[in-house]
Amino acid sequence: MIIVGELINASRKPIRPAIEAQDKAAIQKVAVDQLEAGADYIDVNAGIFVGKEADYLSWLVEIVQEATDGAPCCIDSPDPKAIEKALSVHKGIAMINSISLEKERYEALLPLIAGTEHKVVALCMSDAGMPETTDARLSIADKLINGLVQNNISLDNIYVDPLVQPVSTKDAFGVEFLEAVEKIMKTYQGVHTMCGLSNISYGLPIRKLLNQSFAVMAIARGLDGLIINPLDRQMMANIIAAETIAGRDFYCANYLGAYRGGKLE
Amino acid sequence: MIIVGELINASRKPIRPAIEAQDKAAIQKVAVDQLEAGADYIDVNAGIFVGKEADYLSWLVEIVQEATDGAPCCIDSPDPKAIEKALSVHKGIAMINSISLEKERYEALLPLIAGTEHKVVALCMSDAGMPETTDARLSIADKLINGLVQNNISLDNIYVDPLVQPVSTKDAFGVEFLEAVEKIMKTYQGVHTMCGLSNISYGLPIRKLLNQSFAVMAIARGLDGLIINPLDRQMMANIIAAETIAGRDFYCANYLGAYRGGKLE
Repeated sequence: MIIVGELINASRKPIRPAIEAQDKAAIQKVAVDQLEAGADYIDVNAGIFVGKEADYLSWLVEIVQEATDGAPCCIDSPDPKAIEKALSVHKGIAMINSISLEKERYEALLPLIAGTEHKVVALCMSDAGMPETTDARLSIADKLINGLVQNNISLDNIYVDPLVQPVSTKDAFGVEFLEAVEKIMKTYQGVHTMCGLSNISYGLPIRKLLNQSFAVMAIARGLDGLIINPLDRQMMANIIAAETIAGRDFYCANYLGAYRGGKLE
Repeated sequence: MIIVGELINASRKPIRPAIEAQDKAAIQKVAVDQLEAGADYIDVNAGIFVGKEADYLSWLVEIVQEATDGAPCCIDSPDPKAIEKALSVHKGIAMINSISLEKERYEALLPLIAGTEHKVVALCMSDAGMPETTDARLSIADKLINGLVQNNISLDNIYVDPLVQPVSTKDAFGVEFLEAVEKIMKTYQGVHTMCGLSNISYGLPIRKLLNQSFAVMAIARGLDGLIINPLDRQMMANIIAAETIAGRDFYCANYLGAYRGGKLE
């Protein structure tokens, strides 16, 4: 399971002013805290700063890697130019979040990652809009995976995000997503799947309860990447337990290690 | 989702002495509390009292129904004679927990329920022992379902229990169970599946965490009955959220109702 720490996002209240004030220490603390809590990648997102996104994003990459001894970032932007600039200062293998089948985005991003060892999130979105059914997700995933592999990106570096939509909009949106995860993982052996959680519970109360159920179900279907808040101990404990129940924890060793490390309570 | 309240079980510390002392009020309080917390059936189990089980079990049925205005009991015993006696005093439709493919048990129980409207838990166990794989569970389930239907028990009254085994014994035991649930629900449209949870986490720490993950995953596969402690608010909230994510909550109405009723926090 790959955990991407989602907290360094300019749309979050404490982050926006810290970026504007170039408060390096405040941002770096959030990076270190997430890493210590178990994050494998530190997401950086400066999407709200129109016109300044690329500058801020590359600054975030630099200060995060400075504070974390070069921990890998998940460079999070819909804008290929912002990603290009941030990638140019990133040391080592990064995760790109995300490519999609939207023509402009696809064609601008592909040259940046073709033949590299960077990880890439492949978001199931196209110019036709957001997919609603399992089949629509699979159709986009198939085109994305084939395109990336043909451009010398190994299957192991691809994280398909089948795109979460809220169950408050349509009862079946959870199920359509979960079936897409299972089919993608079975069809393209070696590929990964990943997602953020919060969209699933949009518009409903006590969202953490729904997010948690959704994460557990997705892990049962094979999902092996999550963009979450790693400081949420309850969510992290649930992820560990879910992997054990799903048969992905050899002799329950990870679960028992987490218990001894005080991470389950 | 059918909830069977599991608390009136003589193997539990406060229950055993209450039964021995024939402390009617203590038992009745546990029954009423479970009913108010959302139980559809009240499980009664006096299995530890060798030689006295049948007497105690029928006494439990009588006092539970007296206190609950005739709420249905889940008569829980491996002994057909104890079930027969308890059933003779039960008013209305009961749940029998359980028939299995063990020859002696099967042949003694079948005449008691053939052609009746009682609900019956069909436990996937045979004289060959406990099934370990999905296929072994399906093979037993198939024989049980066919036998019961041929004896005029409607599919809608059958609750197949695929038999939970601990993941601490074998990593795949969770997955084998979950796949059995999905296949049974798809193969025999209209049948139900149900189980207790606690066996899944046997031998591991912080069991509630594993039990919760397991319940959520089983609901995602179609499980529609659980034998649990309905006073465990966290578990009940997770069950409600899981049904919403699994697309079994029309317009999220049940979730929103539970929220308004203060049941999610």
